[in-house]
Amino acid sequence: MLGGGTVTENKMGIGKLALTLAITDGNEDKIRERYEKHGYRLLKGQVGAMDAGKIFASVETAVIRQEIIRETYHEEHALYHAISEAFNAYCRGPVALDNVLRTTGMVFSVVRGNLSIGDSGNGEWIAVVLYGHIGSPRRGFEHEAIGLGIQSI
Amino acid sequence: MLGGGTVTENKMGIGKLALTLAITDGNEDKIRERYEKHGYRLLKGQVGAMDAGKIFASVETAVIRQEIIRETYHEEHALYHAISEAFNAYCRGPVALDNVLRTTGMVFSVVRGNLSIGDSGNGEWIAVVLYGHIGSPRRGFEHEAIGLGIQSI
Amino acid sequence: MLGGGTVTENKMGIGKLALTLAITDGNEDKIRERYEKHGYRLLKGQVGAMDAGKIFASVETAVIRQEIIRETYHEEHALYHAISEAFNAYCRGPVALDNVLRTTGMVFSVVRGNLSIGDSGNGEWIAVVLYGHIGSPRRGFEHEAIGLGIQSI
Amino acid sequence: MLGGGTVTENKMGIGKLALTLAITDGNEDKIRERYEKHGYRLLKGQVGAMDAGKIFASVETAVIRQEIIRETYHEEHALYHAISEAFNAYCRGPVALDNVLRTTGMVFSVVRGNLSIGDSGNGEWIAVVLYGHIGSPRRGFEHEAIGLGIQSI
Amino acid sequence: MLGGGTVTENKMGIGKLALTLAITDGNEDKIRERYEKHGYRLLKGQVGAMDAGKIFASVETAVIRQEIIRETYHEEHALYHAISEAFNAYCRGPVALDNVLRTTGMVFSVVRGNLSIGDSGNGEWIAVVLYGHIGSPRRGFEHEAIGLGIQSI
Amino acid sequence: MLGGGTVTENKMGIGKLALTLAITDGNEDKIRERYEKHGYRLLKGQVGAMDAGKIFASVETAVIRQEIIRETYHEEHALYHAISEAFNAYCRGPVALDNVLRTTGMVFSVVRGNLSIGDSGNGEWIAVVLYGHIGSPRRGFEHEAIGLGIQSI
Repeated sequence: MLGGGTVTENKMGIGKLALTLAITDGNEDKIRERYEKHGYRLLKGQVGAMDAGKIFASVETAVIRQEIIRETYHEEHALYHAISEAFNAYCRGPVALDNVLRTTGMVFSVVRGNLSIGDSGNGEWIAVVLYGHIGSPRRGFEHEAIGLGIQSI
Repeated sequence: MLGGGTVTENKMGIGKLALTLAITDGNEDKIRERYEKHGYRLLKGQVGAMDAGKIFASVETAVIRQEIIRETYHEEHALYHAISEAFNAYCRGPVALDNVLRTTGMVFSVVRGNLSIGDSGNGEWIAVVLYGHIGSPRRGFEHEAIGLGIQSI
Repeated sequence: MLGGGTVTENKMGIGKLALTLAITDGNEDKIRERYEKHGYRLLKGQVGAMDAGKIFASVETAVIRQEIIRETYHEEHALYHAISEAFNAYCRGPVALDNVLRTTGMVFSVVRGNLSIGDSGNGEWIAVVLYGHIGSPRRGFEHEAIGLGIQSI
Repeated sequence: MLGGGTVTENKMGIGKLALTLAITDGNEDKIRERYEKHGYRLLKGQVGAMDAGKIFASVETAVIRQEIIRETYHEEHALYHAISEAFNAYCRGPVALDNVLRTTGMVFSVVRGNLSIGDSGNGEWIAVVLYGHIGSPRRGFEHEAIGLGIQSI
Repeated sequence: MLGGGTVTENKMGIGKLALTLAITDGNEDKIRERYEKHGYRLLKGQVGAMDAGKIFASVETAVIRQEIIRETYHEEHALYHAISEAFNAYCRGPVALDNVLRTTGMVFSVVRGNLSIGDSGNGEWIAVVLYGHIGSPRRGFEHEAIGLGIQSI
Repeated sequence: MLGGGTVTENKMGIGKLALTLAITDGNEDKIRERYEKHGYRLLKGQVGAMDAGKIFASVETAVIRQEIIRETYHEEHALYHAISEAFNAYCRGPVALDNVLRTTGMVFSVVRGNLSIGDSGNGEWIAVVLYGHIGSPRRGFEHEAIGLGIQSI
């Protein structure tokens, strides 16, 4: 490994928190418990689709149902942009599934809180992570993808 | 948390391995030791730049120096596309730093091996993860970003 | 306000004319009358859709019906590119509505004539403006957007 | 003209306000006076460049100097995204000037306030408009372009 | 004509071979015969669609049926990226047909072998060319387009 | 080979003419002679660069010097868009060279005339083809690319 710990790595940011929640497999409760104490609200869900619009809808619905955001346009707009950035990253280019003959199954995590623990001076933010497999509509012809979007809220 | 463990989460894929290596802070040696036994080659480095070309160059140089790939065009081409996909995801749109007045500091991880542990039937792949902070060229005006690119090699 | 009037602002260009027609609310007839004297042909219409192709079709149909262009491929091609540029601008990225879970309602204006009043030396051009609201398919969860495309014809 | 007045046209939105301020030539003071009464903060400036990063820098500097936003990362982030969306629209595709051999001169307007007059329930927003001429680095070989970006703040 | 023959032109590359096969009209058999001797595998087919996904599916199906690639994910992934690059080039921007009101009819060629004749040191590659007409869904309102994608396999 | 000759293949279009001129190696004079009789104007040149703007400039300069277009903005605008489309296709995504650590050497061809031989009813068009090698700034680490842009003029 090159170098040692860097500033980048040393503090738990809202992005790394959402990433950790998305890729863990079994520690969800422990993570949630630990970070809710620091004022974070966390959510994890899953969705599969060949229709890209369904990914947006599934994340939005879960976030509103679990009351991670208030149901105002102001907050929904920030959430939409966070999902949109995460999905563009996940697709490594413009959002596209069926029209480029791809399908995907993914878990998503959403975290709301400070940019990093204790950084209350910079207000609240929302982070969305999409992590899953993307590929041909044929069993096993797929590899992993991830996307992270962060917006001020 | 919605749902339980999914197929997506249950096996360690090359992408999740590269993600874990990128976002860990101190467990690099343990991770490397554990997965080298399964035939993976792993690398972690860091780079900061306002010039996007420098990110490509830094990752390529580190990969070649640590002999993760052979120095042929066939393998370099796969690596280039993996970096390119990761960087597009990191930027959540076309690769752009100085021309949109952004700068970044990041760690990168590169993993070479099977798509998931023991999946030797699908040949070798290379995964590149970029994880760091991106923002205005002004201390503290930045948030996290991540990108993952995977190519057959 | 910084600075004073600039060259940019001092002459009425075909783009500003189409913008003015699009965002006015009641002065359409006055604008049309005034600029038809200078050889411009002007059109204003409206369309709402979650299907992006429908926006292209509605503008094309209105333009042909009102004989702003001749029904040849040469002129239709220039119109198509003007609509396409305006719609890319409106979407602030690739044209996308339903697949990123957005819907829109807009007015459109089309103007054909010189680049600016009296500038007959540079031939004829076509300007397309799309102005409206874009957002979630949910009442009130939307904000304004605008796009302008200009092509030689 | 097709149709009559639509909902789209009937209320003054923050976008139309910024558009009107950008394309007016002489009524800046009147516009500012009228809308400051409704709680809006308005700014107009100008910039010319072949270097895209300079456009971002000029708008940010003017906005901070005139105290349209507080100098926190939370507000700067919203402003950055509004500029970025406006500039993508202006370029009708990815932000690009010198690397595609284009140059531009533009005026910009920034407005902060409610989404439309009296709509205090949806919180504060920021709108950025870029309006000018884009073309070859050769006198007169250029046409108009416009971009609008709106973000919650 | 400027200049003389350049290195670029002097050797038959896999790309030029696929281009030649795509745009020829009657010499397919001669071309195939000549280059199969050098270890190349060649295919030519045709497809028309307003649905972009169908283009991917038609090329993939033809390639697999004619056994140009082995039916493994490793090889299918390289093919998919080659098609995707060719289709992006063909569309001169993101892959888009019906949602931007365009339709297309095309021939496609696929070639597998060395980067250029005798260049066995750089391993095997796959080249995909799409050549046809793209335009409005209206007879004769269309012009030519071409795309080439090359991937290591 | 699938299918037989199609409409797509049977007539010589302006695009195929520019493609043939670009990829030929020695038949330039014969091609030029043959098609000038049908009213076409043809040009071939070459350029190498890591700076994308230089590609635009080289093609524009050659076209103006050889008087393929009149030196008006109306015609230069059509040429610019044709180059831009060809270059986007060549890059298989947004125009980018040095900022994604790529360099290129290419020949370019430009053809002005009817969409296909004898099709005078649809007016004049301009076709630009870029054909060459793109890759790492390292000898031999490159593969072929092609781009075609067509505009009404």
